[in-house]
Amino acid sequence: MIQVKGYAAAQAKAPLAPFNFQRREAGPHDVIIEIQYCGVCHSDIHQVRDEWGGSIFPMVPGHEIVGKVIKVGEHVKNFKAGDLAGVGCLVDSCRTCTSCVQGLEQYCEVHWVGTYNSVEMDMKTPTYGGYSNQIVVDEGFVLRISEKLDLKRVAPLLCAGITTYSPLRQWKVRKGERVGVVGLGGLGHMAVKLAASMGAEVTVLSTSPSKEKDAKDLGAHKFVVTKDEDSLASVNNYFDLIINTVSAPTDLNVYLNLLRLDGTMVLLGVPPEAPQIAAFNLIAKRRRLAGSLIGGIPETQEMLDYCAEHNIMSDVEVIAMKDINEAYERMLKGDVHYRFVIDMATL
Amino acid sequence: MIQVKGYAAAQAKAPLAPFNFQRREAGPHDVIIEIQYCGVCHSDIHQVRDEWGGSIFPMVPGHEIVGKVIKVGEHVKNFKAGDLAGVGCLVDSCRTCTSCVQGLEQYCEVHWVGTYNSVEMDMKTPTYGGYSNQIVVDEGFVLRISEKLDLKRVAPLLCAGITTYSPLRQWKVRKGERVGVVGLGGLGHMAVKLAASMGAEVTVLSTSPSKEKDAKDLGAHKFVVTKDEDSLASVNNYFDLIINTVSAPTDLNVYLNLLRLDGTMVLLGVPPEAPQIAAFNLIAKRRRLAGSLIGGIPETQEMLDYCAEHNIMSDVEVIAMKDINEAYERMLKGDVHYRFVIDMATL
Repeated sequence: MIQVKGYAAAQAKAPLAPFNFQRREAGPHDVIIEIQYCGVCHSDIHQVRDEWGGSIFPMVPGHEIVGKVIKVGEHVKNFKAGDLAGVGCLVDSCRTCTSCVQGLEQYCEVHWVGTYNSVEMDMKTPTYGGYSNQIVVDEGFVLRISEKLDLKRVAPLLCAGITTYSPLRQWKVRKGERVGVVGLGGLGHMAVKLAASMGAEVTVLSTSPSKEKDAKDLGAHKFVVTKDEDSLASVNNYFDLIINTVSAPTDLNVYLNLLRLDGTMVLLGVPPEAPQIAAFNLIAKRRRLAGSLIGGIPETQEMLDYCAEHNIMSDVEVIAMKDINEAYERMLKGDVHYRFVIDMATL
Repeated sequence: MIQVKGYAAAQAKAPLAPFNFQRREAGPHDVIIEIQYCGVCHSDIHQVRDEWGGSIFPMVPGHEIVGKVIKVGEHVKNFKAGDLAGVGCLVDSCRTCTSCVQGLEQYCEVHWVGTYNSVEMDMKTPTYGGYSNQIVVDEGFVLRISEKLDLKRVAPLLCAGITTYSPLRQWKVRKGERVGVVGLGGLGHMAVKLAASMGAEVTVLSTSPSKEKDAKDLGAHKFVVTKDEDSLASVNNYFDLIINTVSAPTDLNVYLNLLRLDGTMVLLGVPPEAPQIAAFNLIAKRRRLAGSLIGGIPETQEMLDYCAEHNIMSDVEVIAMKDINEAYERMLKGDVHYRFVIDMATL
């Protein structure tokens, strides 16, 4: 076993505090990564506070992990010590079901192993995430990271990046298509950058008029204030695709009516209560409401390569590990542009 | 003007009673049809009772119309006196918007003219439907009917047939795909016949175990009692497509969980209250919830030709015009196999 330092929540809603624990030694297919940066995802807060139920404590959150390989097992083919590497939301799956063989491990029909707050395929060993100095992961779930990009700004691509890239690809966004983005946080700001890079006309839909400049700086072409009836009416029956990143309670029917014939709204967040959907809003224009969950390993690698090629990175605010609890409070107020990233050198 | 006999509701919830009215003479592009049979759709009841709001009275319902052409205008190209002809849910639209030029008149961006309880493109002349002995329709909205089929069993294809055919085509049902059908009424029984004819493995999902024999007689391969947990569990993560024909309040999440990865449930009915959809049920398997509205004129013709080729017709119970109010009561109890059709010779 190897000795690891990290930060953990001892129980639901407890503040995060220093926590020492052990990880397995590198098996023949494992890669040991010295973590340099770890992004802070809103789902970290949900899980630390046990808002989805079933949280496992002590919990070391973190699934937007980048760093340097320090050791590899004897059968590892694609990584060597010194390489940059990343780990996202999942670190294992059954690898044999229909979803896994298609590279859609996040939809594994047996069990997918979350990077933290989950159990390994033995169904008992808990997993600990990236708020720590080292992680051991099977190379099949480790991503290659380009040397071209600013590493701290790459970390959030491992969750916020792939979670928005995947539906943009799945729904085949093309040049000139009209993409709406609801919510301008960690996910939303990546959706804007990625959709714009694919040639879409991007509109940010927001309740706050104050976000217009930020939205346009990120690459949005249009900005609609959803509380302003005229602004909203200007995009009625308008969008081919809406990426909805908001998990706060909202009336989804308002957005459905902005979809044109055959348009789709993809939900990426889980609101605390099941939203009401007026069937007529779907029927009247053959509209679709869908969901999408992160992305599989091959698509995550594709996204990282795409971002390296197009120089796309997250906008981040780097924090020290000790400031994580304060960062959570700021995130709950929406006070972050657009992702906190922990500098693990501060651990 | 031409003098027409029919049955109408004088006001919301009034019983239907004889009603004489006038229709326009055949214009240069019009076809006059002597109506032989008219199917009775559940939406007739909703509209007669003003359950969707905005009903126009007096109302002559009926949008599953078949009969014989008795006269055509001078510029009519595709019909002549003596031809069989059909009219479905719509009799006009703007004809110039993006939807109309694609033959998706039911999604017209300006106004589509319903066969009854609607107004013409002049936005004021009310339309009267098929519970009558003659109808005058622009040939662009008249369908050709094969002589090969039993005419009274063709009538319901004009609404129940196209409403189920269209989503099966839109979602590209292929041989071996797993299609679930919720509700075994007028729409559901056509969905079973059509999906089976396309080579799908068809499962009827029903609350009533008593419907199993009927479902299998119609061509279903499997039958699942949704109130039986074991029966339901046998089709968990199972279907590529679910056609949901039920407009009564139900928990749609039960059905969403029966969809496999990337599966879609298409809603054809509008429940009185907007149903709650748990976002996680969509996200967990990249599932989709969609709606579909009848079908456009080209696809309706395609469906009629397909049914003629595959010998597909509705199962009907023929009634006399005077028995319409009693038929409505029986429909509300689900006591019909599977569509009432009015014999207009009884008018």
